[in-house]
Amino acid sequence: MADKELVIGQIGYGYWGPNLARNLSELEGVRLKYICDSSADRLSQAAIKHPQTGLVGDTGTVMADNAIDAVVIASPAVSHFSLCREALASGKHVLVEKPLCLDVRQGRELVGLAEERGLVLMVGHVFLYHPAVTFMREYIDSGQAGNVLYAYSQRLNLGRLRHDENCLWSLAPHDISIMLHLMQAEPESVSARGACYLRENLEDIIFCTIYFDGGQLGNIHVSWLDPHKVRTFTVVGTEKMLVFDDMVPDGKVKVFDKRVYREDGVPGYGEEFYLHVGDEVLPAIRMEEPLQAECRHFRDCVMTGARPVSDGRQGLRVLEVLDAATRSISQGGRPVEIGRGSC
Amino acid sequence: MADKELVIGQIGYGYWGPNLARNLSELEGVRLKYICDSSADRLSQAAIKHPQTGLVGDTGTVMADNAIDAVVIASPAVSHFSLCREALASGKHVLVEKPLCLDVRQGRELVGLAEERGLVLMVGHVFLYHPAVTFMREYIDSGQAGNVLYAYSQRLNLGRLRHDENCLWSLAPHDISIMLHLMQAEPESVSARGACYLRENLEDIIFCTIYFDGGQLGNIHVSWLDPHKVRTFTVVGTEKMLVFDDMVPDGKVKVFDKRVYREDGVPGYGEEFYLHVGDEVLPAIRMEEPLQAECRHFRDCVMTGARPVSDGRQGLRVLEVLDAATRSISQGGRPVEIGRGSC
Amino acid sequence: MADKELVIGQIGYGYWGPNLARNLSELEGVRLKYICDSSADRLSQAAIKHPQTGLVGDTGTVMADNAIDAVVIASPAVSHFSLCREALASGKHVLVEKPLCLDVRQGRELVGLAEERGLVLMVGHVFLYHPAVTFMREYIDSGQAGNVLYAYSQRLNLGRLRHDENCLWSLAPHDISIMLHLMQAEPESVSARGACYLRENLEDIIFCTIYFDGGQLGNIHVSWLDPHKVRTFTVVGTEKMLVFDDMVPDGKVKVFDKRVYREDGVPGYGEEFYLHVGDEVLPAIRMEEPLQAECRHFRDCVMTGARPVSDGRQGLRVLEVLDAATRSISQGGRPVEIGRGSC
Amino acid sequence: MADKELVIGQIGYGYWGPNLARNLSELEGVRLKYICDSSADRLSQAAIKHPQTGLVGDTGTVMADNAIDAVVIASPAVSHFSLCREALASGKHVLVEKPLCLDVRQGRELVGLAEERGLVLMVGHVFLYHPAVTFMREYIDSGQAGNVLYAYSQRLNLGRLRHDENCLWSLAPHDISIMLHLMQAEPESVSARGACYLRENLEDIIFCTIYFDGGQLGNIHVSWLDPHKVRTFTVVGTEKMLVFDDMVPDGKVKVFDKRVYREDGVPGYGEEFYLHVGDEVLPAIRMEEPLQAECRHFRDCVMTGARPVSDGRQGLRVLEVLDAATRSISQGGRPVEIGRGSC
Repeated sequence: MADKELVIGQIGYGYWGPNLARNLSELEGVRLKYICDSSADRLSQAAIKHPQTGLVGDTGTVMADNAIDAVVIASPAVSHFSLCREALASGKHVLVEKPLCLDVRQGRELVGLAEERGLVLMVGHVFLYHPAVTFMREYIDSGQAGNVLYAYSQRLNLGRLRHDENCLWSLAPHDISIMLHLMQAEPESVSARGACYLRENLEDIIFCTIYFDGGQLGNIHVSWLDPHKVRTFTVVGTEKMLVFDDMVPDGKVKVFDKRVYREDGVPGYGEEFYLHVGDEVLPAIRMEEPLQAECRHFRDCVMTGARPVSDGRQGLRVLEVLDAATRSISQGGRPVEIGRGSC
Repeated sequence: MADKELVIGQIGYGYWGPNLARNLSELEGVRLKYICDSSADRLSQAAIKHPQTGLVGDTGTVMADNAIDAVVIASPAVSHFSLCREALASGKHVLVEKPLCLDVRQGRELVGLAEERGLVLMVGHVFLYHPAVTFMREYIDSGQAGNVLYAYSQRLNLGRLRHDENCLWSLAPHDISIMLHLMQAEPESVSARGACYLRENLEDIIFCTIYFDGGQLGNIHVSWLDPHKVRTFTVVGTEKMLVFDDMVPDGKVKVFDKRVYREDGVPGYGEEFYLHVGDEVLPAIRMEEPLQAECRHFRDCVMTGARPVSDGRQGLRVLEVLDAATRSISQGGRPVEIGRGSC
Repeated sequence: MADKELVIGQIGYGYWGPNLARNLSELEGVRLKYICDSSADRLSQAAIKHPQTGLVGDTGTVMADNAIDAVVIASPAVSHFSLCREALASGKHVLVEKPLCLDVRQGRELVGLAEERGLVLMVGHVFLYHPAVTFMREYIDSGQAGNVLYAYSQRLNLGRLRHDENCLWSLAPHDISIMLHLMQAEPESVSARGACYLRENLEDIIFCTIYFDGGQLGNIHVSWLDPHKVRTFTVVGTEKMLVFDDMVPDGKVKVFDKRVYREDGVPGYGEEFYLHVGDEVLPAIRMEEPLQAECRHFRDCVMTGARPVSDGRQGLRVLEVLDAATRSISQGGRPVEIGRGSC
Repeated sequence: MADKELVIGQIGYGYWGPNLARNLSELEGVRLKYICDSSADRLSQAAIKHPQTGLVGDTGTVMADNAIDAVVIASPAVSHFSLCREALASGKHVLVEKPLCLDVRQGRELVGLAEERGLVLMVGHVFLYHPAVTFMREYIDSGQAGNVLYAYSQRLNLGRLRHDENCLWSLAPHDISIMLHLMQAEPESVSARGACYLRENLEDIIFCTIYFDGGQLGNIHVSWLDPHKVRTFTVVGTEKMLVFDDMVPDGKVKVFDKRVYREDGVPGYGEEFYLHVGDEVLPAIRMEEPLQAECRHFRDCVMTGARPVSDGRQGLRVLEVLDAATRSISQGGRPVEIGRGSC
């Protein structure tokens, strides 16, 4: 469909929806035909910003319209599964906000359905389109960092408390998706512990540790009850160490030429270790709004048939980690293996 | 023994020993009669700094000398139990470097022995004598922070790799001792995961989560394979949040007047939450070398019979957490309850 | 005119104009009737954002329209004098972007004209409406900082090079206006030195020192050829010291309880000095867009007849410092007295 | 005298003297034969640290001893001239603390005397031996920074107030020496302004601007009445910008790949400018105590006859700037040309 304009219907215009609609409507080769939301208030806000777009209160119009090539879903997570399924069943490509859905088996069904139909199913893991993450992925792929040994992140703030999901489901999908993207290994087991202080049964703080099948270790610390606003992601490789700090305006990634090596120059398990401490570099990375890159990537994947970076399978892997972490939390931190069924 | 000079024999003059000897020898009311070390090299270094002190190659002289009131033990951790036991059995007060010893049952024996004999048994948890920690403890005790909800720390660096203990036993005793000191609750269970990259069976990075009996959560992240030198300790209370950053020269503690509250002003479990964001304060805290305060406190406790802040029981609690964490690590992060035997 | 809507015509829609128009159009009690600009391109941009506003290509319509109560001038500085004069002569209140104009005598004429006619003449020294500056002014007024001794600022960046004015006229008006506002003393003489590297006769870097009539000292360092983006303003008083850092997202003002005192507790000229180092406080300051506060203040002053914080006289004082600095620069840094004519 | 031990007598054991004595006594190939000080108290402190060194109360013994090859002078600045002259007249090499002396003509006399006698006259501008400054000098010499355009420094603190000299003579010699070293141009004129708040006639804060003969600009801001401890030095070249921050423990130098260029790639005076923003690099610089490098350099220069980096001529240039700045301050900032007489 290379020469055609991509016609999109967006479902959901709440917290994140306006950002999606703004980016979609400014994107070349795309027409945002509908914005759908059950709230009249939100639709009237959409009307101001998007006077050319059709505003509808239920999803039927969007699903039934054969002119619609793709559906963008930014509704509450609980509705993701049924909306995705309906859109895919209607032959429409899908970009769904994270998480893919709330249940691993349902996630597998969606992935299967998309592959069966030859449709793009993409999950809005927006950090995979952040120029800093793209830089780190390319740096690691190039081999310059050596083998990735471990990674850890902190995503902390005071506020944006959610009442419908805990801080794991609200904040950690970002870090899990980055970690899977950079680690290039499969998660094997998760141990997570958290605590609920503001509401019963809704964790405000979670520490989550992941073992990967190559021996790598990952740790994610998320909280919405913290004195600092922190968003850092550290990756330690055998040759270089990378730190991504999203709270600084420039120089978001720092590359440390630091490593431990044995006398013969091979990092490893000998008796005598030496520290190498070389230059630190803040590479010049051209910034753009990650959501803009995400929307463009979705358009391109639909147009060319390419597989999205954050395709359904990637979204499913994130979901599996979330699911395992949830079960671990409910068992006081017991490690939970990530079972992979056929998909 | 208020008016007497305290006569001390020090055992061990390796990495930390010279710092102890320097502080002991400068302390009023104390005489450092012996320095004992099995290495002739180290003894000759001691001779330069402490020309007035007797230098001995084995511990027998120290233990047998009735003029010795107290023994300060800075030898490898594996020797702590037998040296402490011998010193206590000889009727001498003991200041032993952290950890108290390597085995919980042996730790209980030492605590019991000291209490039976009415001797001071103090463990060198030096951070409990750090002015910043003292400030935080007093601040929390005063009620200004409200109820402590959770705490977490990072103690990261590149290097000072140990070959005789993993990063848990090398680094985490500091954080565990601070956490127990500030949390004012008993640890109930530990879940810890780590990874060994530089040596087999010796963890370089560990993430360790502790549940306390008042519902508090603690997390400790230690590593000697990290790009940054970090030493931070964060405590979140219902009324205030405190951050201790030991890497800045001044303003090591920051008090955040931040909290989440319900509309009726009571922090809690309601439906509608508000954020309070008030001033941040960096209190003026008079700094002194923590080890100097520790040595002075040991002298005073021996002189007055007072119970040390880091007495044997406190050292034993740290040891119990280390022991539980070790067992958790070996089981891939399975939560391990901290069993308290009679002591 | 308390109950009436204030009808405004804006002249100039270049770099800063769109920000003004946005704020004016969102302000209650104000109607933005015209936007005037000589560029058709810029007018068509204005049309998108302000479909309700009349767009005109020359200023005559605005000046001639009796319904217009006030003119907001955001045109190039070279046109400020004649536009202000015409607007005032037409009986209209004026808010003019900084600088008031380019010539001290012309500035005096405008101030005289406004006062004669009883019209508001306000200069857009936007930093005087920055919540951090407001806080500092109130803090100093309250006496808590003691007597202000000296102040210095840095406003540095790479870029936004101007071709029509040097970095003094482009950047320093902000710092001069803040300094005059906080110092509460009259500038007596200026010594300034700069250098031109990118263009002939257009300074890229300037250091400017001001003596005030109460013995205070001020220094301003501006540059658009610097590796860092810096915007700091430091005020040292006898009792407290204040630092305003506009590049941090929160905690923009820091209050240092630091001072030097004599043994008898009186700061002064004795032989023996002591340092007092107390808490540092980052006061919680509610942020709002300074330009919004500026526009609201203009509206209120017109409505109530109050004298603006940055009225014509204040704008004239800034202009006098700029003028003296310009003459000092041209004479290699020779101190230039600020002559105050009758006004 | 390549194979001989260098025999040194040190005069002055006050604030800085103990650091010199420690470094000299630990330096291979050097024997510290005397420490001379007029205070019995200070000599008794010297006795503890330097039991092997002869302690004398007046300088005659040192000057008269033919075994003494070199004299190290760390006495008050007012005595530098006569002590240097006497030492040189006695045929001894001299390392004198900054400033060389207090009077330009006397400084010229010392330089002339040393050259006439073929003796080393070195001034203790210790920052020229700081690894960060050495790095910057080599970086600039290599051409990588392009042409140096301008430089500025801040040396601020609360305290170490002096009663015998103002903050210019106390603090600025460091920055002036670094600036002359990196700028590789001759200072032409100085404009300086300061203010005296704590003592009459003794400036606490000074801003000092220097024009160089290649069109470069330098600015120095020194203060001992400031809320922050700051020690930064920024150098802007046509190709790279360098910042030296001496208050951070690691990464003291940052190299910014930033510049402004014209469309044809040549930095210059065209109409259209572009910003280049590349990587930032914190080079790994092996740190050592600058004073140790300084003492070693003095030893080597005496041994080999090499000209010191901070020889008498360099010290004289610093003195000329200090002298011009002093005269400018006394005239309210009037620019003062640096007259170079025959030397």
